[in-house]
Amino acid sequence: MQKFVIVGGDAAGMSAAMQIVRRLPDASVVALEMGDTFSYAQCGLPYYIGGDIPETDNLIARSAETFRNKYGIDARTYHKVTKIHPSEKTVDFINMQSGEAGTVPYDRLLIATGARPVVPEWEGIDLQGVFVLKTIRDAERIREYVRNGEVNKCVIIGGGPIGIEMAEALSASEKKVTILDRNPQLATAWNSEIAEIAKQHMEENGVLVKPEQNVKGIVGQNGKAAAVETESETLEADLVLLAVGVAPNSELAKDAGVQLGVRNAIQVNARMETNLPGIYAAGDVAVHYHRVKKKDDYIPLGTTANKQGRIAGINMSGEQAAFAGIVGSAVMKVFELGLARTGLSRKEAEDLGMEVEVVTINTKDHAGYYPNAEDLSIQLIVEKSAGQLVGGQAAGKSGADKRVDVLATALYHELTVHELLDLDLTYAPPFNGVWDPIQQAARRF
Amino acid sequence: MQKFVIVGGDAAGMSAAMQIVRRLPDASVVALEMGDTFSYAQCGLPYYIGGDIPETDNLIARSAETFRNKYGIDARTYHKVTKIHPSEKTVDFINMQSGEAGTVPYDRLLIATGARPVVPEWEGIDLQGVFVLKTIRDAERIREYVRNGEVNKCVIIGGGPIGIEMAEALSASEKKVTILDRNPQLATAWNSEIAEIAKQHMEENGVLVKPEQNVKGIVGQNGKAAAVETESETLEADLVLLAVGVAPNSELAKDAGVQLGVRNAIQVNARMETNLPGIYAAGDVAVHYHRVKKKDDYIPLGTTANKQGRIAGINMSGEQAAFAGIVGSAVMKVFELGLARTGLSRKEAEDLGMEVEVVTINTKDHAGYYPNAEDLSIQLIVEKSAGQLVGGQAAGKSGADKRVDVLATALYHELTVHELLDLDLTYAPPFNGVWDPIQQAARRF
Repeated sequence: MQKFVIVGGDAAGMSAAMQIVRRLPDASVVALEMGDTFSYAQCGLPYYIGGDIPETDNLIARSAETFRNKYGIDARTYHKVTKIHPSEKTVDFINMQSGEAGTVPYDRLLIATGARPVVPEWEGIDLQGVFVLKTIRDAERIREYVRNGEVNKCVIIGGGPIGIEMAEALSASEKKVTILDRNPQLATAWNSEIAEIAKQHMEENGVLVKPEQNVKGIVGQNGKAAAVETESETLEADLVLLAVGVAPNSELAKDAGVQLGVRNAIQVNARMETNLPGIYAAGDVAVHYHRVKKKDDYIPLGTTANKQGRIAGINMSGEQAAFAGIVGSAVMKVFELGLARTGLSRKEAEDLGMEVEVVTINTKDHAGYYPNAEDLSIQLIVEKSAGQLVGGQAAGKSGADKRVDVLATALYHELTVHELLDLDLTYAPPFNGVWDPIQQAARRF
Repeated sequence: MQKFVIVGGDAAGMSAAMQIVRRLPDASVVALEMGDTFSYAQCGLPYYIGGDIPETDNLIARSAETFRNKYGIDARTYHKVTKIHPSEKTVDFINMQSGEAGTVPYDRLLIATGARPVVPEWEGIDLQGVFVLKTIRDAERIREYVRNGEVNKCVIIGGGPIGIEMAEALSASEKKVTILDRNPQLATAWNSEIAEIAKQHMEENGVLVKPEQNVKGIVGQNGKAAAVETESETLEADLVLLAVGVAPNSELAKDAGVQLGVRNAIQVNARMETNLPGIYAAGDVAVHYHRVKKKDDYIPLGTTANKQGRIAGINMSGEQAAFAGIVGSAVMKVFELGLARTGLSRKEAEDLGMEVEVVTINTKDHAGYYPNAEDLSIQLIVEKSAGQLVGGQAAGKSGADKRVDVLATALYHELTVHELLDLDLTYAPPFNGVWDPIQQAARRF
């Protein structure tokens, strides 16, 4: 009987486990999860805090019990893996509830330990009222603190997707929200023009947006957070959310001799194999091959974790599958706005030495004469010499995600900007213009 | 000075004219339009009748005056072309207002005469209250008849997009609407399962849907339509809309020796050239190369007319461009529902001798735990042996168009159903599932 061990019971790990049990019903599959929850929808947490989602139970796709009883996976919570022994093909764990230690053998091992929020070494970081958002417990703590405490002013440090989604979530509780970023703009994965649309919309919704802020520390009063101190000012804050990025939980792998890559994520090939025989990695702890950059990158997202986990599981089962790579697609809700992107931003392209033209069009999501046409801004990032499409971005109350999904599909096959004009996209006045906005943009190149 | 003549002043014709004047500012471009309006949004007409669009002026993209004064195009309304003389390179016209006849010479000629509604030879077809919908004047006549007349019961003959959109438009005026089709289902471009969703939704909105009805004629009373008689029953009708399809206005071309193709549409190559030197055709009068069928088809749509017109104009100007072909994409609004499709339907695939599997998934447009998730049904039509995607369809209140646009882009590059799983589509709970519905469907293959 083949023995599989999965370290980490979230998207990547359990996608792999499901592929294995489906292919090898007699195999032994042990899934060791350090926390108390398997397979939860991390991306839903801001909406639980904001109140759109009533219970955290809504966010649990499958419980440990389901994995055990329905799929025969030995899914264990509170099991922290302490060491991997590649030569013995075993892993040591400790049961964090009982304190008991143990060892499980494996033929094939998946490291799917995910990522953790980066916590800077600032003064006051341990004060009450200072949070990160990663787990269901984090979300419950924040929601409770917001509802039961005396929170009026929230400062969010970091203007990426989590920071921005949390700005909306905390505004829903009628708190005064300020969001800081050390960069000249929020949403640095987007071009400045698109990020500016988001900034204005956030400000219209009462959020104070402060770019170019270097945080020095958090000031407390009676053990609770009271203010955030930056190099230029002091901002009152009853609640501070740290959203300055994530780092892969790759230490366990590194200690075992697994090779790391970009940003200390685990180096994997297209089959999700590490450098050590029988050891695979996937999801937020692994590198992600970027099809447009044509090299590994580190962009941890749930979609990618599910895909990589699936690929890992197929290969671990003895079949063949290759991860095709990401193209850098993402979308986020910014109050009423959708902000979407795929491929390379202007900066990413320039960092790779490409000479690009950014074509912008400000148009409507559907025929202008049909009711409720909404503003939609589209940018195409085009490599100049050959007219190669290398990226696309969009912002609007309706249809930004749709256009970027089309562009993501186009990037998959390396379409030129000219070929975008050939696409036979659906049209009727309530849904589109007779030339889709991405084609309107392409015609400007 | 090069002389260009465009016959027909709508999407295809004026797209071509604009390409020519942009490339050859000194050229003579004469555009002869038989009707009173240039470049109008035909697809918007049902929404004018339904009241969503207040004025027909909203539907005119550019007037004849704009073409004349701003772009230097000699745009003439009420000019009916009566004969093309390929050997002399001239066209004869008659000014339908003044009655004067004339002749214009051309170096290059574009036939963009569009299509006309098919009017069956039924008894009573000339009665007052019997309409087709093609032009702005048609729409005005229908709206006036609905508003000023004593219209209570409307019967629409033909369950294609125009019939269905008009069922909604006439329901908006609180008329009792019945829609007939001779086929076993409405919306025959869609698979029966998707068409059934539309049918149920129409019925929920008070429309009486009657498939498998062979119309015999229209019965009048005092010169006005009073009932539609089918082989099985007599349906009272104060207003009858004929929406049984369109036919290309290709007689003029045929008389001149231009070769016709599928469904009597003008045969063109990828450059929009006909068999006669210097004569081009584009839009609803021409054939449309279908990339998935790998042969010419006839699917007249505004999107295609714009694309073909643009290609024709570029080639007529002396540059090179090829029409990449359609993949059969379309979307329509059915009350609150979006119904979208691309590629081949099950029937189209089977008619081509393909052995296909139709994979169906009934899911939600975005994460089920996030508020307002709407039902979304997706079908993938997959060629069995190689898993080649050959078509896709969707129905739902939100996101059907988005998924079909992604599939249309995938079809452009002949993706397999397996490759759909590789697509890096945008995800956040308000916009999508972590596996996009098309990927959820693909996983079922």
